[in-house]
Amino acid sequence: MVLYLIGLGLHDEKDVTIRGLEAIKGSERVYLEAYTSILGIGKERLESFYGKDIIVADRDMVETDSDAILKDADKVDVAFLVVGDPFGATTHADLLLRADDLEVPYVVIHNASVMNAVGALGLALYNYGQTVSIPFFTDSWRPDSWLERVRENARLGLHTLCLLDIKVKEQSEENLARGRKIYEPPRYMSVPCAISQLLSLLPPSPSASSSSSDDAAPASGVAPAADALDPSTTLAISASRVGHPSQTFVSGTLSELAALDEDAFGGPLHSFVIVGRTFHALERDFARRWAVDRDNWDRVSKEVYAVRD
Amino acid sequence: MVLYLIGLGLHDEKDVTIRGLEAIKGSERVYLEAYTSILGIGKERLESFYGKDIIVADRDMVETDSDAILKDADKVDVAFLVVGDPFGATTHADLLLRADDLEVPYVVIHNASVMNAVGALGLALYNYGQTVSIPFFTDSWRPDSWLERVRENARLGLHTLCLLDIKVKEQSEENLARGRKIYEPPRYMSVPCAISQLLSLLPPSPSASSSSSDDAAPASGVAPAADALDPSTTLAISASRVGHPSQTFVSGTLSELAALDEDAFGGPLHSFVIVGRTFHALERDFARRWAVDRDNWDRVSKEVYAVRD
Repeated sequence: MVLYLIGLGLHDEKDVTIRGLEAIKGSERVYLEAYTSILGIGKERLESFYGKDIIVADRDMVETDSDAILKDADKVDVAFLVVGDPFGATTHADLLLRADDLEVPYVVIHNASVMNAVGALGLALYNYGQTVSIPFFTDSWRPDSWLERVRENARLGLHTLCLLDIKVKEQSEENLARGRKIYEPPRYMSVPCAISQLLSLLPPSPSASSSSSDDAAPASGVAPAADALDPSTTLAISASRVGHPSQTFVSGTLSELAALDEDAFGGPLHSFVIVGRTFHALERDFARRWAVDRDNWDRVSKEVYAVRD
Repeated sequence: MVLYLIGLGLHDEKDVTIRGLEAIKGSERVYLEAYTSILGIGKERLESFYGKDIIVADRDMVETDSDAILKDADKVDVAFLVVGDPFGATTHADLLLRADDLEVPYVVIHNASVMNAVGALGLALYNYGQTVSIPFFTDSWRPDSWLERVRENARLGLHTLCLLDIKVKEQSEENLARGRKIYEPPRYMSVPCAISQLLSLLPPSPSASSSSSDDAAPASGVAPAADALDPSTTLAISASRVGHPSQTFVSGTLSELAALDEDAFGGPLHSFVIVGRTFHALERDFARRWAVDRDNWDRVSKEVYAVRD
């Protein structure tokens, strides 16, 4: 029979496709991949909607015990559910190559993921560069390779989708050392946290600490280089809970977004896009509707991004 | 009430989500945007599945007569269906800004589009650069700006998703001049056509005309620069009809793919990905399964892309 990889989409039990739902209902066992993203609802609601028990598959199980998932999949259908699209956050190539070894065919049932649903911000998907993931900094670990990728995109005029860290099933150092399977509460990075980490990596600049429109224009009147990521003249658009009924978009300069309270963005998951210079008038108007300060949005669009009507 | 923008996904009537189907069934009027992509089926099958008449909205209608689509949408629900995701090929920002003007709220119901479903090729979506569209060349018009974007991606080690031209509802010059609304049959660019157009823009190189493994290695033993796009040492993976039951993936060098018959890729829609240097061993193994020549795939991966196990 078949291993189905089924995307669940972005919010709740009704975001699965008709094709996906039929495959789930016909499957003997149903696994839910539970480490690369989260739905807005618990697995109980999925179980009652599907009329099926769900086995939660954590990273350990998928990476080290894929044969348990594939067991008998040559005789019965097995469904492997992934929030978003099955290939969104990770390709699951190990699992699928193992299925090939066991001569179990697989069928992918795609769905929306943040990688394409971010199109709802109104910036053309064609003009995005590579996507980055921003990890939580600690006192002793402040990785910054993602910032170079943001700069590479910016130099080409491209937008950057920034996905924010999720810590699920993390163990404290003490519990890890003692081999105790006690997990910390999940942590989800917010937009202000991510942007303040970003700003902490930038060299100090005269306008870096300012978000007012008077000070924001470079004194020389010369627009800063795109890859300088000047916080008061670099536009960004946040996207929280994309595809959920409560999704929230906020647009403004990096300084403006960093200064907002976390509540302005609501609950997890948060992401944001750093706007590249390919920005044009229709995109400006579309995202202006969510601007912290519409006048400043228009001013930076015109003076720094050179958007013309 | 509400304007629903609903993604239909990639293949047939069963690729809509449960949420999307409920919204369609509750809508007073249902439009199908019919110019940026195609489903694998006709609108009649959608109509009988939904139990609703469908009004086909061509580009003209959406761009110049959006008020007809939005008529009474403050009193009744209206559904606007888009193949793939509503923001995949175009943002529909004009329509949505007009909805705002008329104080009609809109709700987006996302779905898979080629922009994220291409993840099924096994290359991490994070490592894609900007997407390009390759237009049909004519005798007098051979636009090449997209090739520079491929090179920009290649220099950064990134993959490029190449979407191929669709000509739907095109008029001949004569019919256009005479104002006759007679349309040519639709045309869909194939992978060999797209790659041969690409190759025609490259400067001639010693190995450019060869696809055999003996001649393909540069005589000097030095790997060519990534942005040279040497056809015998640049890897690519084609993806036809992504998300359809008949989807077909083929991997190989640009030369190998260009030399195949169109039948090897099957019917439209075709796209392909030019593999960047971020390529790694698991991705090589995953895509090897579709290789024209597995030995050459491994050889180029190792010698040119420096993939290590």
